[in-house]
Amino acid sequence: MQFPSKLIEDAVNAFATLPGIGKKTALRLVMHLLQKELEDTKHISDAILKMRTDIKFCNTCHNLSDDDLCSICTNSYRDKKVICVVENFRDIIAVENTRHYNGSYHVLGGLISPIDGIGPDKLNIQTLEERVKNDQIQEIIMALNPTIDGDTTIFYISKLLNKYEVKITSIARGIAFGGELEYVDEITLARSIQSRLPYENYLSK
Amino acid sequence: MQFPSKLIEDAVNAFATLPGIGKKTALRLVMHLLQKELEDTKHISDAILKMRTDIKFCNTCHNLSDDDLCSICTNSYRDKKVICVVENFRDIIAVENTRHYNGSYHVLGGLISPIDGIGPDKLNIQTLEERVKNDQIQEIIMALNPTIDGDTTIFYISKLLNKYEVKITSIARGIAFGGELEYVDEITLARSIQSRLPYENYLSK
Repeated sequence: MQFPSKLIEDAVNAFATLPGIGKKTALRLVMHLLQKELEDTKHISDAILKMRTDIKFCNTCHNLSDDDLCSICTNSYRDKKVICVVENFRDIIAVENTRHYNGSYHVLGGLISPIDGIGPDKLNIQTLEERVKNDQIQEIIMALNPTIDGDTTIFYISKLLNKYEVKITSIARGIAFGGELEYVDEITLARSIQSRLPYENYLSK
Repeated sequence: MQFPSKLIEDAVNAFATLPGIGKKTALRLVMHLLQKELEDTKHISDAILKMRTDIKFCNTCHNLSDDDLCSICTNSYRDKKVICVVENFRDIIAVENTRHYNGSYHVLGGLISPIDGIGPDKLNIQTLEERVKNDQIQEIIMALNPTIDGDTTIFYISKLLNKYEVKITSIARGIAFGGELEYVDEITLARSIQSRLPYENYLSK
């Protein structure tokens, strides 16, 4: 692609480093900015940089935070005896958006993956054990993606925390609401039959 | 959507002001930046701002430019006697990418649109007339979108330049390569029959 100006080319290439944005889309974004006020571009440029420079990680749960402790860990209305273990901060947003969970979180920062060379020591697992030991945690809910890495991580953590008096659960896996049996893969369908629920339990969900 | 931090929320909202980027995509971009080095974010932030702050418009053809004259107007290998008239700088990039045009350009900055209250005085038409008058232009190629506004603009400019010895042409309109007759709209098909070409001409295109 030929660009009329080096400045445009640099901006297009910068946008195109973002995921899901190719050169054509990047050019469209640049053209949009050129047609808007300078203030708008300044605002976007500042907001991105400030976010990246000033962001911190919560000392307790490793969630993204404006301060040393995140807004969930400092919220006295949340149940600190229950920890929901997630892979990354995106998953916290997903769980929070359900508005059906009132405990605290723990961000692992990844999943155990022998193939990719990610061992337990590269994840925030030690701090999780410390929390369980020191804070009399009653329940750990494993909310990890239903993959081999996810299952490996659940297995490792449940072994590790075996010596503490803590209940370890995992979020239910099965047929999604609105899904059709006909199109569900065999593993999901088999698992959802194995872990079938009494009708009353099902209704209460 | 709930955000773990005000900084994240600001950055997401900033990204979401761009066309085609919603809150979910914006969040994905922010998460991507958080997982990359600070330098990467700095680079994007700087490139965008620098582009918007330092960009100029070419004094001759109103194309985007790093200097007072754009790289096309200062290129001595380009034919300065032919001007391709386009609506905006995006169209220049489109024509340049064909690598089949070696003349100069003139960016109107819009199309005449009585409904939207855009008259000829709001466009770069006066400077086009000056160029035709002063530079002994031989041909004006109108490369405008085939809409009512586009046709109105072509009509106005051809009337205006009638008094000069300049040939005014328009890019050909017809069935696109790879298009199927069956699915072409009536206006395009009718026009392409009216402006049919001798077989030899067609082959030479």
